[in-house]
Amino acid sequence: MSDETLSAEEQQVAEPWRATVLTLYPDMFPGPLGTSLAGRGLENGLWSLENLHIRDFAEGKHRNVDDTPAGGGAGMVLRPDVLAKAIDSATGEGDDRPRILLSPRGVPLTQEKVRELKDAGGAILVCGRFEGVDQRVIEGRNLQEISIGDYILSGGELGAMVLIDAVVRLLPGVMGKIASGEDESFESGLLEYPHYTRPTVWEGREIPEVLASGHHGKIAEWRHEQAIELTKERRLDLYNLWKNENG
Amino acid sequence: MSDETLSAEEQQVAEPWRATVLTLYPDMFPGPLGTSLAGRGLENGLWSLENLHIRDFAEGKHRNVDDTPAGGGAGMVLRPDVLAKAIDSATGEGDDRPRILLSPRGVPLTQEKVRELKDAGGAILVCGRFEGVDQRVIEGRNLQEISIGDYILSGGELGAMVLIDAVVRLLPGVMGKIASGEDESFESGLLEYPHYTRPTVWEGREIPEVLASGHHGKIAEWRHEQAIELTKERRLDLYNLWKNENG
Repeated sequence: MSDETLSAEEQQVAEPWRATVLTLYPDMFPGPLGTSLAGRGLENGLWSLENLHIRDFAEGKHRNVDDTPAGGGAGMVLRPDVLAKAIDSATGEGDDRPRILLSPRGVPLTQEKVRELKDAGGAILVCGRFEGVDQRVIEGRNLQEISIGDYILSGGELGAMVLIDAVVRLLPGVMGKIASGEDESFESGLLEYPHYTRPTVWEGREIPEVLASGHHGKIAEWRHEQAIELTKERRLDLYNLWKNENG
Repeated sequence: MSDETLSAEEQQVAEPWRATVLTLYPDMFPGPLGTSLAGRGLENGLWSLENLHIRDFAEGKHRNVDDTPAGGGAGMVLRPDVLAKAIDSATGEGDDRPRILLSPRGVPLTQEKVRELKDAGGAILVCGRFEGVDQRVIEGRNLQEISIGDYILSGGELGAMVLIDAVVRLLPGVMGKIASGEDESFESGLLEYPHYTRPTVWEGREIPEVLASGHHGKIAEWRHEQAIELTKERRLDLYNLWKNENG
């Protein structure tokens, strides 16, 4: 990997981005977030992670966190009282961090939303499990439902990790000397152009000639055209949005 | 959690779903996939996980896996020769599992795609890092690019975990006695209706009356209307698709 030493400026971070995760599987964390870019940022205090075990807020002999759905149906539903206690415990006075429930019913996570969450200074992330979460606690504790994609996971934990990873790599100092990622997919509204590196010829396949030309203008133009073509081919939705704004 | 004992029928699984992950961070796996539903399925042999460290296929004193982008620009690009060797080592003769590169440039992962991958019996999952992967190895080794959402992660590892988790929960025996999830978001083309459970009154908020009526027809109708309203409000894209097919 390239040189990632931090400059003095990059190391000057006022307050770490603060994640609090509410989960029934606290042992999953930090997990993948404890290595690589996110892990180094965690070690260096650029962000912080607190896990709360939802079960610690349950009462009774069995410490039940869930119960059967009102009106019948399969699966179990997370109780509003237990989850509300966990949320209240996670949020001190004046804590105005966004409260997020990871859920396939949510508004899709986008890079724009990621930047917004980064600027919010942190987030409280509630990981659903079972069939779902009682609707009253979503309303009563003002949870924003966010979905990381149009598929179903066994719980919200991987969604929370995805959201945290996406935010954390944007924090000053985390990417180090690696560029800030302005060229990357979604930042420009287009998918990213194709990349090439050594060897110059591999299995008879050559790197496109223009990239060896040394002509920066032509290279930039070629990459832009490739990005447009790829977006049109794979993501007509993004292409149309981009075209409306740039056409 | 509810009773998840497996029936004899559910335990009869011919061959485990087989995931092979190519990564620069093999220690991240199984990580979150080692607990809960996916973890139990892994222990019970309902699916299998093999990790290959891409760096093991690099040569030279420094075992470099990446190099600077042809044509200039920030970041580093994964070399085609190194990655091709890793892929070739992962795929034996007659191994026709789909080969997937997790990438924000990819086609979006959907629940339909998840079911397709489940039926394919396994997958080879290549986790990109740095600026990207040399385009020639994507073409030369026939990699499908799949994106888990419109945001940028520090690498493909969380994407691979998300994909595996989504597939694994659909495998016979993994969800046990929990329902197969037919009612859930996306399976019907609509977001899921709101859930409620005990207590009947919480912080002055009551469970909607219809759910206590015992009238199954009315309950189903109410839930369906709620699902339509929610989808219309949050996901006009899904609502319009659903309306075209059901309207």
